[in-house]
Order: sequence, then structure tokens, then C-alpha cells
Amino acid sequence: MADFITKRAEDYSKWYTDLVTNADLAENSAVRGCMVIKPYGYSIWEKMHDELDKMFKATGHKNAYFPIFIPKSFFAREAEHVKGFAKECAVVTHYRLKNSADGKDIVVDEDAKLEEELIVRPTSETIIWNTYKNWIHSYRDLPILINQWANVVRWEMRTRLFLRTAEFLWQEGHTAHATKEEALEEARKMLDVYADFAENVMAIPVLKGVKTPTERFAGALDTFCIEAMMQDGKALQAGTSHFLGQNFAKAFDVKFLNREGKQETVWATSWGVSTRLMGALIMTHSDDNGLVLPPKLAPLHVVIVPIFKKVEEINAIYDKVQPIIKSLESKGFTVKFDDADNQKPGWKFAQYELQGVPVRLAIGARDLSNNTIEVCRRDTLEKQTVSIDGVDDYIVNLMDEIQKNIFQKALKYREEHSYKVDTYDDFKAALDKGGFVYAPWDGTAETEARIKEETKATIRCIPLNNPLEDGVDMLTGKPSTQRVVFARAY
Amino acid sequence: MADFITKRAEDYSKWYTDLVTNADLAENSAVRGCMVIKPYGYSIWEKMHDELDKMFKATGHKNAYFPIFIPKSFFAREAEHVKGFAKECAVVTHYRLKNSADGKDIVVDEDAKLEEELIVRPTSETIIWNTYKNWIHSYRDLPILINQWANVVRWEMRTRLFLRTAEFLWQEGHTAHATKEEALEEARKMLDVYADFAENVMAIPVLKGVKTPTERFAGALDTFCIEAMMQDGKALQAGTSHFLGQNFAKAFDVKFLNREGKQETVWATSWGVSTRLMGALIMTHSDDNGLVLPPKLAPLHVVIVPIFKKVEEINAIYDKVQPIIKSLESKGFTVKFDDADNQKPGWKFAQYELQGVPVRLAIGARDLSNNTIEVCRRDTLEKQTVSIDGVDDYIVNLMDEIQKNIFQKALKYREEHSYKVDTYDDFKAALDKGGFVYAPWDGTAETEARIKEETKATIRCIPLNNPLEDGVDMLTGKPSTQRVVFARAY
Repeated sequence: MADFITKRAEDYSKWYTDLVTNADLAENSAVRGCMVIKPYGYSIWEKMHDELDKMFKATGHKNAYFPIFIPKSFFAREAEHVKGFAKECAVVTHYRLKNSADGKDIVVDEDAKLEEELIVRPTSETIIWNTYKNWIHSYRDLPILINQWANVVRWEMRTRLFLRTAEFLWQEGHTAHATKEEALEEARKMLDVYADFAENVMAIPVLKGVKTPTERFAGALDTFCIEAMMQDGKALQAGTSHFLGQNFAKAFDVKFLNREGKQETVWATSWGVSTRLMGALIMTHSDDNGLVLPPKLAPLHVVIVPIFKKVEEINAIYDKVQPIIKSLESKGFTVKFDDADNQKPGWKFAQYELQGVPVRLAIGARDLSNNTIEVCRRDTLEKQTVSIDGVDDYIVNLMDEIQKNIFQKALKYREEHSYKVDTYDDFKAALDKGGFVYAPWDGTAETEARIKEETKATIRCIPLNNPLEDGVDMLTGKPSTQRVVFARAY
Repeated sequence: MADFITKRAEDYSKWYTDLVTNADLAENSAVRGCMVIKPYGYSIWEKMHDELDKMFKATGHKNAYFPIFIPKSFFAREAEHVKGFAKECAVVTHYRLKNSADGKDIVVDEDAKLEEELIVRPTSETIIWNTYKNWIHSYRDLPILINQWANVVRWEMRTRLFLRTAEFLWQEGHTAHATKEEALEEARKMLDVYADFAENVMAIPVLKGVKTPTERFAGALDTFCIEAMMQDGKALQAGTSHFLGQNFAKAFDVKFLNREGKQETVWATSWGVSTRLMGALIMTHSDDNGLVLPPKLAPLHVVIVPIFKKVEEINAIYDKVQPIIKSLESKGFTVKFDDADNQKPGWKFAQYELQGVPVRLAIGARDLSNNTIEVCRRDTLEKQTVSIDGVDDYIVNLMDEIQKNIFQKALKYREEHSYKVDTYDDFKAALDKGGFVYAPWDGTAETEARIKEETKATIRCIPLNNPLEDGVDMLTGKPSTQRVVFARAY
């Protein structure tokens, strides 16, 4: 219950962990850094999966599946790529266990050592481009627009449920194109798909931008991103789309004959979002009572709690609400009538608030005689007693309103926590308040690194269509041509 | 095209591989034993996934996700389990790569050795029961009905696309119950779900049975299975459901307080089907021209090929068929109008036959003036010219007929290749013809092993509700109480 959840104001980080655990979303497993996604958490992820999958297919992509293992030598082929991932690779070295000599234990069989070590994929560019080599011969084979839903492993040292785990679930798009323009267009298009999903499904306002070279994906020429702001003012990178240029095509020698019969090297993109989005979802909307979910991602939309003294009263209540249930279900909503008699209504209310059910209906004997029902919306916790006639339509509209309201609320939060500063003192003060800080930057990696070291803030992105603005770098005093977005980040 | 596919009669095994490769279903990857599931193959798997997922949810199961890694010590806890899987485990021993001393290579960082090795899950009983330990305290926490969609790794030495691969995709159900009866009922119920799916969705007739102790899942008290017969007469185990008794609950010390306040040990089941089903689907229905798909699993149901001399004619044809497309799509079918002008109709016909599209429509100038259209069904390759009026309803019925026909055809094949024998000579002769051989067995593992060694046939199952029949074991002459089903198997 809410009693078990630390208040946000008290300890935001503990609030998050309490909420994830108590709302039955996920928990740590016996394997360091790996989580168990519990049924309720997984059902939200399934909804995200289904919505994204629809959007990918609507933009011409098809799903496929590539091996979980990547030969070590594949990594070495793209210099930047291996540099980025080598330090966090799970390495498979053997393929058999056996009884120990004394028969008391199970040990690795040293006779079953792999000739070449295999890496559990942290991302699949290398194995996929090694495959594309055989698929691409002519311009007619292009573009290839493929997505993969998979698990990946990055051996992170400090992990947090959903936000940073050694294993996570994600999707990774990998596309191949005949021209640079087409690849760039694809990378931008998928960024738009992510932004659309974040804002219109997850109800999370996001900033679209491009990463600085320092923050790029290992092996990319450009990394586009969407950045969201959590309720503690910290940024969370919610999705990235990479323009990979010809780096992987060159590393794996992927060429095609163009219309003129000449050999050219293929252009590439990759893009991904992961179960990290669950963290973003939780930290954007939820409150001290528990989860707040956008109706578009809620596994359960409406719960009806009958208020009764004797069990016999339940039937009369059920008869009254049955048409509402039918009507809502026919409109695609999931409805639960909770007639359990071993828990009191108050306990149930708290439980459904914790789980973020968008609308709760309560109905008792007095309501029956008045032909009314109590409607409580999860986002504001406002209660209203309305007529039962037409309550189904009322709820349909309310869902829409909740979806919009939580987006607007998050947007307002972001606006109130966005600052323009010109001096380093103001910069540090703004960072301490929490939020996005728009500040001039001289464009060098050195300055970026120094600021990170001194303040723990990183450049989250250079917003797309960023206005040019002559200015002076707040740290070095060198000229700056535009403001970039700094923040402390997850 | 079909030209590239070896005929079944010539070399069944090569026919299978040719078909899988040429119909763009899957291919071998650069990683030994791991396959790439190509978009067309994956789209069929997605349909299987979606149908099964619906059936699991309709029977009260919820999805969740558990770690891909299992600590080595977990395996050792259940003696039979580790015996069954130790010889085919991918073992993670390190978590970092680094540059070699000479800087020329990437090597495993020996400083990053794991304290305890991790196994890439070959199945998840151990990690899941270690988790359930914390979820189960009282009878109120039971039953737990959870399913997981995941990839698993079993280091098979001889691999074949879909049928036996080092990595494969599957679902694994893991349930926990208060009583033995309830667990047994669950195991049987899920076997029925699998049989229902195999017969009514995949159109594959299956035999429901129970495995002999020798063939049981490592750690199970009973393994129920569905067995299908391929077109070469070999058996393919298409799904298994295990009654695990209290083995894993004991190994991980999972107890609950019953209604009387006494501690009891929990009962378990697990059940799974995998991408192996793709192999069963292909080998049950397909022919020398390519794939034959049951309409319920076809990613593309209807293809319309316009027959035209000049490109301008396409428009008139399209106008004519557009209402058919709309009507079929509104009924849930996927329809493609293939107006590509760089391939001839004959080439297209062969291509769609290869891909197993259930219904092909062809329409040209003469059809336009006659108000007719040619309908070709993939299962029989029969063509019929019918009136365009009402062709949509005709096709809807045809889909149903195809679904039923390929099931009946497979059932007939199985009946024609099922033999009752009483002597070892007849047994061997029947095996060589290919098929299921119902023969008396004395019930001992020794006889079973000898038969396997001498004939390569295994006991596929003891059919459920098997009639008792006094007999004499064909090999040992010892008494037998029932016939069991022998076959050579995939």
C-alpha cells in the first residue's frame, strides 16, 4: 500500500524503488543487475510493445530475429563500436558443465572451451551487418527495413530497476539504404515515431535533439534522441536513433550495384527504445499514492468497487453496473468488478491507486436508490457523483481527458523547470533547482567534459531546429553560436 | 523458385533445407548452430505467438520475464535437472573485454572473471522457482500461473534450421499449485491447449500421450506430449507439458501455509513450445512447389496478380478488384495486389506458391469483359474461373475449406502410416516404411534402449486413455499390458 511508499519529497530515489516494488512492476533477481519483470509490470510493457510494433509496421518495417551471440572478432571490426561496448560485455567461453572430480560439485568443463569467445549481444549492429552482407547485392535489395524485439546484456556496475539493468528488453531497428539522404531521413523519421509514441501514448513530453559527439552511440555519425524530464528535474534519454553512415557497411564490406552498375557502399541507421521507458513512465506521472498511468497504456482501465454490508447486496449492484461494463468493454476498455469480500473498500481503493488504474467507480445501496455512482479519477484523485445513465460515455471522455491532462501536467512541469542562463553561477544554481538548463557552449568536447566533471551535468542534446544565437561560453568565455540543453540525467 | 527446391521424393532432408532457405524463412548465421529468422519466417512465428498468447491468457495465465542468466549453483540443486542440461550449456565466465598487450587484438579481460559462472538459460525452472520462493507464503498466493516468451540456448552438436538450433525462441509456462491434483490438472489442461492449437490453428493432427521415464523432461515426474507425423513418416514432438511434482519446490525450499495453518510444499508444472513448431508446420503441409500454410497462420492470405500487356490496363483491373480487396480486408484477411511490371505473371505465381499464399487470384482483359476471375488454391493447386460477383464470399469459404483440407490430408497421411505390429520383424519393416508403429512393450527401460539402439526408433508416447491389451513384448517375449507408439523422430 501507499504506506510502504516513501514520499517523493523525502527521498525521490527511494520513492521510485518502493513504487516499482510495491506496485508489483519488477524486482531484483538472484543474478546481479538482472531484474524480474512481474506480471503487472510486464502487462504495461506488452502494451508499449504492441503500440510501437504497430507504428513500426505502419512505417514499412518488418520484424526478424538475429542470434543472441556475437563472435568476439565481429566487435573488433568497428573501432569505435568495440571501444564503447568492450567494458560491459558478458562473455561466453565454454559450452559444457561436468561433475567435479570428487563428484560433489558441478564445474565448467575445460575441455569444452570455445575456439572463439562469444559475446552476449549488447546491441546487434555487427551480427546484423554481417548478415546483410549476404542479403544485399543490388539497389533492388534496398532499402532493408528491419526491427528486432530482443533481450540485450550490458554489464553495468550500478543498476536500478528498469533504468539501468544488466539485461533489458528492447527493440532495435536496423536499416540499410542506397543513399546518405535516405538513411538520414530514416533516422529522423524513427525519431519522430519515438516522439509521437512518447507524447501521444505515454503522455510524456520530449525534446527532440541531436547528441554531441561525446554522447553519440559508439559507431554512429549522428545520434538523434528524445529527452524527457522526470519529476526530480533530472533528464532521461527515452529513445535514440542513429545515423551510422557507412561505418558498419565498411566494417563488414557491404556493397551494392547501383542503377548505373557501379559498386557503392551501403548506408545505415539503427534505433532503439527499451524497458527503460518503464522507468520514464513511472517517474513522469506517478505520485505518493502510487502509479499514475496514461489510459492508453493501462492494463486495467476501470475498476468497480461495490460498497456492501451483506454479500447479498452484491448481486443488486452487479445487475446495475453490468450494462456499464458491457458498454465500456465494447469500446475497448478493460473493466474489473471487484467483489472480493475479504478486503474492505478502503483497502481496495488504495490498492488500485497504487496500481494506477485510471478510473475507479464506487457504488453502494444509497447510490442504487439514487441511480448514481461515484467516479474517481486517478490523476487528480477528484471524486464526483454522477448519474448512472450515460456514465459509460462520461468515462470514455474522462479517459481522453486523463490522457491529455497528465501530458499537460508533465509539460507544465518541464516548462517551469527549464532555464536560460548565461553565467556559470546561474548555471549551477539552476542545476541545483533541477531541470533543463539552456546555456551557451563553445562546442568543444573539453568544455563539455569539464562541466560534467564539475557539475555532473551533461549536454542532453542540441535541440532540432535550434535557433542560432551569438553568445559566450559560460565557462571558457569563447564564442558560442547556440544554446544547448544541459541537465543531470539518469 | 521451385527450381531451386529438391523434390521430397529425391531427398526429403534437402527438400526441407531448400524450402526454408528459398522461402525466406530462416538461414544459418555466423554463430555455430544459431539461426537468423528472416522477416517472412518471423511473421509466421508472430502469428503463432499471438494465437498461443491469446489461448494462454484465456486460460488465466499472465506473462512475465525472468533473467536470461542462471547461477551455476542453481542448476546443481535439482539432481536430475542438472544431469539433463549440463552437457549443453553456454557458460558466461567473464564480463569485460580489453585490448591485448600489443594493442592489435581484443581479448577477454582475465581481471573480470565472475565469482560464479552464469549459464545462459536452457530452460528457466531453477531461476523461476528461486523467485517463487519469495512470492509464495500462504495458500492465498496460489496458484501462480505465469508464462514467459523468451530465447533459450542449448548447445546442440548437430543443428538444423528451426528443428534443432543452439538458440531458439519459445514460451515456457511455470505454474505453482497447492495440491498435486491441481498441478496435474494444469499440466493436462495445457497439453489440451497445445493440441487445440496444433490441430485447429496449425492444422496438424497430433497424438496426445505421456512419455516413458527415459524420455521425460529432466526433473519432471511426468511429461505429457503431443506428437505429430511429418511427411517422411518421422515423428516430431510438437509440445510438452510437465508435471514436476514437488521437485523444484523442494530444491528451492518453496513452502506455503495451507488453510489449516500447516506448512506444505508447493506443486509445479512447466510447459513449452518453440520455434521448432515452424519445422513441424513446414514438414506437415508443404510440397515440391514450396510452402503450404494454413490460412490461420498465413501472413498474406490472398494475392491478386493482374495479367496485362500495357501498364495502362492495370488501372482498369485495379478498379475491378478494389471492392474485393476492401471486402476481404474488412473480414480480417491480408490481401496484396501485385502490379510490379518487372516480373512476369508466371514468375509471380511460382513465387507466391513458394511462399504458401493460400489463395491466388489472376485477372486479365478477357476476365474483365466476362466479369470473371481465376481463383487458384495453394493446397491443391486447383484453378477455377468464377464470377467476380460474390468472389469475396467464395474466398472466405475457401479459406475455411483449405484450413480443413490440409488438416484432413495430414490426418489421412498419419492413418495410412500407422501400423499395429506384434513381431520384431514386422516392427522393423513398418519403421522402414515410415510412420507410427503401435507395438507391445514390456515396460522396461532396458528394452526401450535396446530397440532404440537397434532400430533408432524411440517410444514417442503412451497415448492418453490407451486401451489395455494383453500382449507379448516383441523383443523380450515378456508380458505387455498395452501397445505404445514407436517411431523414428526429429
